[in-house]
Parts: sequence; structure tokens; C-alpha cells
Amino acid sequence: MPAPDLRPLLAFAETLASVARPLARQHFRALRAVETKADRTPVTAADRAIERALRERIAAAFPAHGVLGEEEGPDRPDAEFVWVLDPIDGTKAFASGNPLFGTLIGLVHRGTPVVGVLDAPALGERWSAARGLGAHHGGEPLRVRPGRPLGDAVLYCTSPDSLLLHAGCRRLRQAVAWTTWGGDCIAYGLLARGGADLVVDRGLKPHDWCALVPIVAEAGGVMADWQGRDLVLHGDGAVIAASCRGLLDAALPLLATPDNA
Amino acid sequence: MPAPDLRPLLAFAETLASVARPLARQHFRALRAVETKADRTPVTAADRAIERALRERIAAAFPAHGVLGEEEGPDRPDAEFVWVLDPIDGTKAFASGNPLFGTLIGLVHRGTPVVGVLDAPALGERWSAARGLGAHHGGEPLRVRPGRPLGDAVLYCTSPDSLLLHAGCRRLRQAVAWTTWGGDCIAYGLLARGGADLVVDRGLKPHDWCALVPIVAEAGGVMADWQGRDLVLHGDGAVIAASCRGLLDAALPLLATPDNA
Repeated sequence: MPAPDLRPLLAFAETLASVARPLARQHFRALRAVETKADRTPVTAADRAIERALRERIAAAFPAHGVLGEEEGPDRPDAEFVWVLDPIDGTKAFASGNPLFGTLIGLVHRGTPVVGVLDAPALGERWSAARGLGAHHGGEPLRVRPGRPLGDAVLYCTSPDSLLLHAGCRRLRQAVAWTTWGGDCIAYGLLARGGADLVVDRGLKPHDWCALVPIVAEAGGVMADWQGRDLVLHGDGAVIAASCRGLLDAALPLLATPDNA
Repeated sequence: MPAPDLRPLLAFAETLASVARPLARQHFRALRAVETKADRTPVTAADRAIERALRERIAAAFPAHGVLGEEEGPDRPDAEFVWVLDPIDGTKAFASGNPLFGTLIGLVHRGTPVVGVLDAPALGERWSAARGLGAHHGGEPLRVRPGRPLGDAVLYCTSPDSLLLHAGCRRLRQAVAWTTWGGDCIAYGLLARGGADLVVDRGLKPHDWCALVPIVAEAGGVMADWQGRDLVLHGDGAVIAASCRGLLDAALPLLATPDNA
């Protein structure tokens, strides 16, 4: 079976990002209400409006494709192509007027993420990539920075919950130059454009990471689970991104430190 | 003794911010090197260039005034007026291409912070205030949001180091609606513009908080140490900002939880 032509699918993903951006901007710093979901995470009218608009566009253009989104149930999750959507990644930031949030649009082909767009509406920045076609940011090719020793590496973690209490994370934090907190999807975007060396998160859902895999990979980095395996839709949600294989290989044994070490 | 006229001093502080902004933007995402200081925090050419430029302007305009800065030693720290400068607050963010950093310019009169400017060069946003003259953001008056119960409050913490391991912080985190990590000075700016209810930090230096006190106070909020007292230059660096006195009063007893509780 020939590999699918990803060009029109990447162009369509960018169109979706352009549908989402004005909706996000319209609600940013103008929210009237923030609801808390059953899992104690927030959701806003913007999350729901964006996901609805993107699903409508996908259903019209590619009725055979599946959709996994953060806010609504799965639709044809076993289709050959599945769009994986996070209308607002970083809803806590979004809801407090902090511009570090993004819309994530991923496309998975037979289980492999092949197209990814990260659009940051309040920053006016966009990262996009497709397997074999490179990664771009504002029209320029994206490139991670050159590899460096773990002791000089800059680590991003979105949230310290569980991470600070996890022995492996504590060891990794002690080994790097410094750690910066927060950022959600933007942290992966910073890594892809050469601003950071490692991002570590736990408890992620596919909509949090699918779009980021092609971006990081095509920029020259690598994303994996904490055992170094390719990320899969039914994995455990532990994710690491590294600017090079050497840093990944240096970080994984530290993350594997048992909690009673 | 009559109170000083703060208008020309506020205007001068804004001039300093306008000197700093292009220097910060020139280095942002274009850094060649990041040094690590003895305290394991980073410093860049931008931090040093901005502080030098601001000190030159202050010495020329107000030779009798003192200066406390992050990067150079104190100059006339016992003067009636002392400028307290942080050329780049959020250097870790700055150095990784993350726009959540700011230049902080505070003016202290006989120990009391009376003028504050927070300029965010990469966001193109500025917060400014002087005691009795109100607080502004992009020309608009700044106002915290209405008070709400602690259980509905949004908390910001720049770094979980020490906070997650501190019993009082853990209790406060459990009591609020949710916590967002990162942000440095921008978190206080978000509180002042109605996006968050509480900010808690430990280990701050005067250059980290002096400029923020007039901004938060003139926006209708309150900043204090963890005993609820006014912040002083020789305090312990534990800082809390609240959108109203009621939230401060609800948070302080939780922060006072002993570590063996």
C-alpha cells in the first residue's frame, strides 16, 4: 500500500487551525464563566465551540475519517485516518488570561501520528509538520538545537503534581541544568524551535500529544513514552520529548528509578 | 513632610521600561549563551545590558537616588528614594524562548514601594502604577476581579520547589479550585487584571516583588508576607498576593500549617 500523500491533509489541518484561532481569541480574556469538569479540570465555552467547529469541518471534508476530541466522545476511532483534537490545550492558562495555550490538531494514520499543527492564538504563533515534509514555524523550517550533555539540559514540566513526588522525576531534575514549570503544549513547541532540551509529562491523553509527535520528530527531536517506546493511543500517558536520541537515552534510566530508591 | 509628587517618577519609570524593552526583544530567541550563576539561576547578556542601561539613566536623572538591582551591587541603598530593578524577571523562560518574562522597575520611598512598572517585552504588554494614582494596563485602568470563596479561587505559583514539600502550601493548594505553575511576575500581572485570585511564592528577593506591590494594591488587591504583614526589603522572601483582603485572610492560616501537621 503506498504511503498517503500528506500535503493536502497538512493544508487541511492548517485550515482547521485558522478556524480555531479567531474563536479562541474572541473568548480569551473575555470569559464570563469557567466550568470545572468531573476530573477537576476546567472547560470553557471556547473549548466546546472550537471542537464543534472543527468536527463540522472534518465531517464535511472527510466523512470517512474518525475523530477523537477532548470535549466530545470518539467518532469512528477505528478509521484508517483519525483526527485527534485538543481545542484548548492549557485551559487553566487560557482561563486566567495567560497566553501560553494552544489548539492541537493531529492526524493519526493506522495508529501513527503523521500530521500535527500547534496553533497559539494569543501568541500569534503556529507550528506545523507532516511526516517526511519537515516542520515549520511561521514559514521557517523548525530545528531543535544541537545535542548537549544532560547536565546542561533545560527541562520543562507542565505540572509538578506527581512529578515532584516521583523518584525518577526527582533524579532527572537533579541531573539537568534547570527546570521550568508550566507551558503545556507550548513547552514542546519551544523544544522544537531550539529553546529547550527535554519535556516530561505524566497523565497525558492522546489529544495532548498526538499533534506534537510529527512536530518534534520533523524538527529533529524524538518523543516517546517513559520506556522509550513510540507513543500509542492506549498508552499510559507518560510522555518525554528530547531534542536528540542521546538525551532521551540519558534521561530514561533516571526516570526508571523506583519510588523506593 | 508632604508626600512626594509621584507623577514625574511614574513617567520616568515608564521611560526606563521603554529603554529596556528593545534590549530584551533584541536578545529574545536570539541568545548565543546562557550563564549559570553561583545560585544555579541563569543570567544572560540581556539581563546585564538592561540593568546597565537603566542604572545609567537613573544616575543621570536622579543622582541622589539609590539603586538595588539583580545583577550588580547596591548603590546608596539608604537613600530616600531607591529604585529596585529586575532587568529580566523570568530569565529561565526568557532563555528558552518563552514570552512569560518581564522587566520590573520599582521605586521605594523610605521603605515603601510607591511606583511600579511591569513591562512584558515579548507580549507587548505593560502594567504600571503609583500609590494614589491608580494602576493601568495598556492605557486602561486595572482592576482585580470581585472576591470569591477560597474554594473557587485560582492560585498561581511560579515554582513548586519547596512549595509542594511545604505543609501550608499543600493545604492551600487543596483548598483552591486549581493551581497553575510558572509565570513569575506575569502571574501577579494576571491577578491585577482579574485573571487569578492568589499568587504564592517563596524565596523572592526585593527586585522580584517591589514593582508589583503598587500594581496589585492600586488594582484593588493586596500583597503581604506569609504572616500578613507589609513586605519589607529585609524580609524572608515569602510573598502572597490576593485579589481581596478576604482571600488573604482565608489563605494565611492554611499557609501557617506546621510542617509536622
